[in-house]
Amino acid sequence: MIIQNRITKLFDIHFPIIQAGMVWVSGWKLVSAVSNAGGLGLIGAGSMKPELLHEHIIKCKAATENPFGVNIPLLRGDVKDLINVILEEDIKIVFSSAGHPGRHIDDFKKNNIKVVHVVSNVKQAIKAMEAGCDAVVGEGVEAGGHNGADELTTFCLIPQLVDALDIPVIAAGGITDGRGIIAAMALGAEGVQIGTRFAVTKESSANEFYKQKIIEAGDTSTTLVLKKIGMARMIKNGFSEEISKLEMEGASTEVLKEKLGTKREMKGIFEGNYEEGMMEAGQGSGLIKDIPSVSELMKRLVAEYDNAKKNVG
Amino acid sequence: MIIQNRITKLFDIHFPIIQAGMVWVSGWKLVSAVSNAGGLGLIGAGSMKPELLHEHIIKCKAATENPFGVNIPLLRGDVKDLINVILEEDIKIVFSSAGHPGRHIDDFKKNNIKVVHVVSNVKQAIKAMEAGCDAVVGEGVEAGGHNGADELTTFCLIPQLVDALDIPVIAAGGITDGRGIIAAMALGAEGVQIGTRFAVTKESSANEFYKQKIIEAGDTSTTLVLKKIGMARMIKNGFSEEISKLEMEGASTEVLKEKLGTKREMKGIFEGNYEEGMMEAGQGSGLIKDIPSVSELMKRLVAEYDNAKKNVG
Repeated sequence: MIIQNRITKLFDIHFPIIQAGMVWVSGWKLVSAVSNAGGLGLIGAGSMKPELLHEHIIKCKAATENPFGVNIPLLRGDVKDLINVILEEDIKIVFSSAGHPGRHIDDFKKNNIKVVHVVSNVKQAIKAMEAGCDAVVGEGVEAGGHNGADELTTFCLIPQLVDALDIPVIAAGGITDGRGIIAAMALGAEGVQIGTRFAVTKESSANEFYKQKIIEAGDTSTTLVLKKIGMARMIKNGFSEEISKLEMEGASTEVLKEKLGTKREMKGIFEGNYEEGMMEAGQGSGLIKDIPSVSELMKRLVAEYDNAKKNVG
Repeated sequence: MIIQNRITKLFDIHFPIIQAGMVWVSGWKLVSAVSNAGGLGLIGAGSMKPELLHEHIIKCKAATENPFGVNIPLLRGDVKDLINVILEEDIKIVFSSAGHPGRHIDDFKKNNIKVVHVVSNVKQAIKAMEAGCDAVVGEGVEAGGHNGADELTTFCLIPQLVDALDIPVIAAGGITDGRGIIAAMALGAEGVQIGTRFAVTKESSANEFYKQKIIEAGDTSTTLVLKKIGMARMIKNGFSEEISKLEMEGASTEVLKEKLGTKREMKGIFEGNYEEGMMEAGQGSGLIKDIPSVSELMKRLVAEYDNAKKNVG
């Protein structure tokens, strides 16, 4: 895999492989390991208070000399505090999601920060481009965790983004091996963002029981629920089945919100509570069979990519 | 696109491009044009009585000397009569869907018919392989028309099928241009089945107004409804919105069946009735912008495929 394109240049990375900034998963250990292996690691600030984000940035800087970034959900009430941490620590790469891409972009741009926004349809992508983003992540409905309401798949979303935009597109959702990377590039993406596969590595801070559940997963083990109050993909469990049933019966947003309660992601991913938590994971979970180190995984992805080239003649 | 693999050999075709056997769309004109252009055309028997199927087979034979096949929904009440037409007319390629792949396979196999079954998850695919099918079509939830309940996407379904099977996999769902073909091959498919893109050609028997609606479609123009009684993807219209609303409110299967009524596919696709019909179409509709002849389209797909090779380094 020798690729030089707008994404490798934008971030000054060796491989156009980006590790998604996942809640409860992407701390400094995972992020620095990915960046040290030639990809781009992203700290997932979504599950961090500003002080904790600061700590992870400091530790990540100590663990790698390579570029890394931070993923920030723009809808967070304390987003200004998160941004202040980023500015103080001179972070140069921000991936933003869940909110208007233009809202804080001036803060980023006047500090020479590269900004990438996560989108799930063409309209959002054009908005991100017009707001001044340097690239977008196009995230298909295969992805674990929160998803766009239009349920566009990676296969259909990526080429439509590529045709509509002048800025480069990073593909996300369902990419778990080298075949997926080459398929995403074939569709016109210039990089890939990989989530669940990186969540199941030695350096990931996800609970070992969460990792085990992904390894046990088959092709039909994930489900998409909570469509009325914030759709998310997760490993099927008693909780998701209860929600599915309520949704089939037409439950109101109030009932669903009460049933959801709080801290389901923390319980599922960080505490490994299968019964009560949300074990957010992508539809590609069935392809994940082991818990490698990040270094092993990156070598494997590159080898699989090179090997899959013969598939395309 | 110079590809020689198990799929091109199985059907004795030049390109591993198969035109889906679509109801109200895939008559002898479309099928013979695809086979004449080096792909594999499939007559869509789903919307034909046995006599009409017989007529289309006779006309197709007169219009091409190349191989073509027939798609048969195994759940049809008169499936035996359809099969008799196929045996009498010495058809050598059958794509079966919607039913147990083993049910009529002896009839096919003792007449040296190549049999391909359409599947939407790994379990169904293994069943098809064990029943003796020569290949499977793995159809992702991007596809137009009826879809598997597990909602697996092409990106996630195909590699999992490839890993689980010894027989070759044909990818379907969301493939509308050469980039899609190369992506499907990268994921391990050895052929592609393309639906909506072929429905919007000069030789397709879909209504001109249906074709126009696909051309006008954007990335978010299709929707997946009728989950409780037989999920289908179609262009959004007043009918689909009514169904969506009922589903969100928890409507019963009885209410939904009554609302669905009969002949919605015929009305939408064949009669071009946007208000009352179901205009079944894939999520890739937003990539379709014109009504070429099949010959033009096939040349374009091959050129796009060759061009997209540079995307993968």
